[in-house]
Amino acid sequence: MRTPPCLLSLTLDSAVLNLSNITDLSPLPDHILIELFLRTLRAGKLTERVLKLFIATGKDEVFSLIQALNIQVTVNPVLPTRALNFDLTSFMNVWRPIFSRFHLTIVKDPDLKEELKIPEGFNLDVYKEPDIDRVVGTSTSIIFSGYACRYFGYLVSRKKYIISMDDDCLPAKDNKGFLVDAVAQHITNLTTPATPFFFNTLYDHFTEGADFVRGYPFSLRNGVTCALSCGLWHNLADFDAPTQALKPEERNSLYVDAVLTVPARTLMPISGINIAFNRDLVGPALLPCFRLATEGKFRWETMEDIWSGMCVKVICDHLGLGVKTGLPYVWRNDRGDAIASLRKEWEGVKMMEEAVPFFQSVRLPQEATTAEDCVIEVANAVKEKLGSKDPVFAHTAKAMLDWVKLWKSVGGSSSSPGA
Amino acid sequence: MRTPPCLLSLTLDSAVLNLSNITDLSPLPDHILIELFLRTLRAGKLTERVLKLFIATGKDEVFSLIQALNIQVTVNPVLPTRALNFDLTSFMNVWRPIFSRFHLTIVKDPDLKEELKIPEGFNLDVYKEPDIDRVVGTSTSIIFSGYACRYFGYLVSRKKYIISMDDDCLPAKDNKGFLVDAVAQHITNLTTPATPFFFNTLYDHFTEGADFVRGYPFSLRNGVTCALSCGLWHNLADFDAPTQALKPEERNSLYVDAVLTVPARTLMPISGINIAFNRDLVGPALLPCFRLATEGKFRWETMEDIWSGMCVKVICDHLGLGVKTGLPYVWRNDRGDAIASLRKEWEGVKMMEEAVPFFQSVRLPQEATTAEDCVIEVANAVKEKLGSKDPVFAHTAKAMLDWVKLWKSVGGSSSSPGA
Repeated sequence: MRTPPCLLSLTLDSAVLNLSNITDLSPLPDHILIELFLRTLRAGKLTERVLKLFIATGKDEVFSLIQALNIQVTVNPVLPTRALNFDLTSFMNVWRPIFSRFHLTIVKDPDLKEELKIPEGFNLDVYKEPDIDRVVGTSTSIIFSGYACRYFGYLVSRKKYIISMDDDCLPAKDNKGFLVDAVAQHITNLTTPATPFFFNTLYDHFTEGADFVRGYPFSLRNGVTCALSCGLWHNLADFDAPTQALKPEERNSLYVDAVLTVPARTLMPISGINIAFNRDLVGPALLPCFRLATEGKFRWETMEDIWSGMCVKVICDHLGLGVKTGLPYVWRNDRGDAIASLRKEWEGVKMMEEAVPFFQSVRLPQEATTAEDCVIEVANAVKEKLGSKDPVFAHTAKAMLDWVKLWKSVGGSSSSPGA
Repeated sequence: MRTPPCLLSLTLDSAVLNLSNITDLSPLPDHILIELFLRTLRAGKLTERVLKLFIATGKDEVFSLIQALNIQVTVNPVLPTRALNFDLTSFMNVWRPIFSRFHLTIVKDPDLKEELKIPEGFNLDVYKEPDIDRVVGTSTSIIFSGYACRYFGYLVSRKKYIISMDDDCLPAKDNKGFLVDAVAQHITNLTTPATPFFFNTLYDHFTEGADFVRGYPFSLRNGVTCALSCGLWHNLADFDAPTQALKPEERNSLYVDAVLTVPARTLMPISGINIAFNRDLVGPALLPCFRLATEGKFRWETMEDIWSGMCVKVICDHLGLGVKTGLPYVWRNDRGDAIASLRKEWEGVKMMEEAVPFFQSVRLPQEATTAEDCVIEVANAVKEKLGSKDPVFAHTAKAMLDWVKLWKSVGGSSSSPGA
């Protein structure tokens, strides 16, 4: 006669069968959570939704297990796009423990003449100028050179979650000295709800020990889907050229151990250095359309990501999606001469003074229900309100419309790299 | 013949004479800053404005000096108001190094029958029920009992900055293990600008190593005056009764090393446990007017501070003032039975679902240019939009109007404690 199963075991089996009715696993003690996870896996019930449920507990044990079992949360293309430095060997090797678990998309800056040097042992696609010409053609107003080459990767990827990181970034350490898994943190940010309609003073309620505080309306606690996750930078933060020039010794070493939702109707400077997003929801709203007349080769000589960031924030607010900022940090290396960049930077500074009030006041019509619709509406408003102020704005409006056309024709169909 | 003064010395003397033209001292190296501070002091030029300029550098050396020289930034009444526990001995003694530098106002909860036990060695005023009756009278709709007794202290104080802390709070430690000087941090928060119109991803730009990031509009970098500083809690955070009951073991130990401005038009649950504010600017907007029908003796059985917090946030947004949240933490002790409180808590939860949409949509007229004006406008709107939904709202609207009357008659004139 077999020993009858214990009550706990029966309960867990019943839970596996009823996972579709469960919305929160976080009250479970760790050992029961792990046992439930393993039984779910054995029963073949680890769907994407169920996996998110486990990830949403925020428990380290769950992350370790996911990593140990090499479960691909949803296959994530990491895009260490564009190489000012053509030799990616040390960049890729230092990220190897993290990047080697995912499919990578590398886009070679068309302006870069040298061949890329990429170490062995990664699962990746490399896209080069001929691929771009073949897919996009050369007649469009969109230029995929410099920092903007990454957007070609966003266009041709077919993955739900995209993580994008500049190639001067290395893994950072947390305040206990442990290396940060930036990909895991971005995934957590994107797969747990955001709360843009009321600020929680303890920041992200998913963090261990945190929760919604007294007075937080219960009707807003379910939150909304998070569409964008913006990470931060240690060492050389993403300062502009004037700040760099004024404070050449300034380095960021503060580890602010928090993720927070940027409230609805609040704009922010979204940097493209270390971000992740849900391509299905907001892919077309990350766009390479704003190019300064004197755009340069250093991060502080560009504004393409700041413009794109205000677009995507306004669109997320309109569509009821969330944007998070904070963790993960990456370690960013110094390069470039800030003082030499100052002349170019002032152009960007001047443009921001026009662009910010525009984005603060723009409102999209109810009928715009997809990211594509919204980009078209923003583009038309840019043309109308800013078009006469500077040729850059008029060009940007046209490029945004071209980008939506391109996304509709290319972004939705499958694509493969050239030989 | 005397040795001629060196160039640095001449420069510093010139700087002392021209302090009125200087708006930022933070680029100065530490040793020059300290030397300038000492010369300013010797020259008798350390006005409140100049002191703020030094404080705004955020440099530890400046704070140490201010503390060592026992400079009263502006005399700050700290209000460890209300004693559920009548014996304040251990509370006051543990705060002694910090509180003994300031003038304290203690308000005895009229419901408390025992005599207060207060240790020697503090500069303080104690207000009791007869003082309240004498100043306020007994015919008003405002009740200063329980947690609301603190508002009597706000009313009779004549100090610019008020810091208020519940008596179950102890000094917290930072992530390096050092005790946090909560008063110094609140003063820094209140005396440095807030930036409510655009979110800075590196949080407070005054923190060492932080600054405004690329893309932050230069025209918004001067910020606005900060009127309110909301601190946080280690150990027992300010959770509501349902959260406490559901997660009785939950404790907050995360030290999020950041101060941030809560963006304009974003509401938040402002807890009264650990806050500081500029009484001149928003004193009348912190008000004891919202009292649940089943209000209890534990923090999670009250909503008076949450209501007051939404009022003051809406008023700050209207007046173009800032609200900061984050540091300083205090260590908060456990007490009370959350499960027993659940019955009362649901009343507060239900009220919030009505109050939050009201405060999110209320807009004040241009003519309201003072906190008093604004409170009257909010009170009238409460009466009109919420008055019929629940008697608590109708009573609150009346109490808010009474409070403004009281503030105008008592809050502006001098007052002294009874015998």
